[in-house]
Amino acid sequence: MVNILHRVGIKSSLGDVYKALATREGLAGWWTTNTQGEGSVGGVMQFRFSAGGAEIGGFTMKVTALEPGKNVRWQVIDGPEDWVGTTVNWELKREGDYTIVLFKHQGWKAETESMHHCSTKWAIFLMSLKSLVETGKGEPNPDDVKIDKWN
Amino acid sequence: MVNILHRVGIKSSLGDVYKALATREGLAGWWTTNTQGEGSVGGVMQFRFSAGGAEIGGFTMKVTALEPGKNVRWQVIDGPEDWVGTTVNWELKREGDYTIVLFKHQGWKAETESMHHCSTKWAIFLMSLKSLVETGKGEPNPDDVKIDKWN
Repeated sequence: MVNILHRVGIKSSLGDVYKALATREGLAGWWTTNTQGEGSVGGVMQFRFSAGGAEIGGFTMKVTALEPGKNVRWQVIDGPEDWVGTTVNWELKREGDYTIVLFKHQGWKAETESMHHCSTKWAIFLMSLKSLVETGKGEPNPDDVKIDKWN
Repeated sequence: MVNILHRVGIKSSLGDVYKALATREGLAGWWTTNTQGEGSVGGVMQFRFSAGGAEIGGFTMKVTALEPGKNVRWQVIDGPEDWVGTTVNWELKREGDYTIVLFKHQGWKAETESMHHCSTKWAIFLMSLKSLVETGKGEPNPDDVKIDKWN
């Protein structure tokens, strides 16, 4: 099993960062505007992405843990084959003026080229999360920063 | 052992991307302006970083492989303790209009918080590399995009 790991510091409160990770409105502000579903524990959320006006796929997550100001966890229940069964873990803590986000996308079966892509793209989206919370404006899909032909 | 993996697509030739990875001038244009040393196989390169006008450390790499248009490899021989002994591997290939960069920073001993930080920061620097090759202007340290208090 291999994991994608990231860390960013956001100049804002634990509560504001948590809100951006635990609510439909927050997630739509930095990951993808096409975010649907029920964000409580046991609920299911659909994240759909588009390019050039056409839907190109997405991920369905079951919310498996929500600890306000501390932790958000998802399990991927539908999406690309290599995503299904993986887990996404968001851990929050304070450090000086920052809320630190420790991100782990765990349980990849192999170091595929797609995994390399997703690792870079998660970093881009974490910077979008940082921007949303610090400035009020993120860069969610379809206006996300593109890194290659896979988007 | 755990690895940091990334992938970007750069709208440019294999030769131009290779040049940005295999020459002192190229590296100084996207990673850190304070890049010194000898870039041939067996040579040693020093990458030093600064913040607020003061040097904050860096990495010394031995160049272990150079295959024009194809591959660049480094071994970390000095720097932060968790970096020493790790290897950095750049693999290039063509795909449509893009030169694809497959990046692997391999051999981390543990999934430390510092490793999470470096994973995100490598993605930022890969976007700086992409920008340098595509537009002529990268964002090397000290003008790199900051992601947290660790820079």
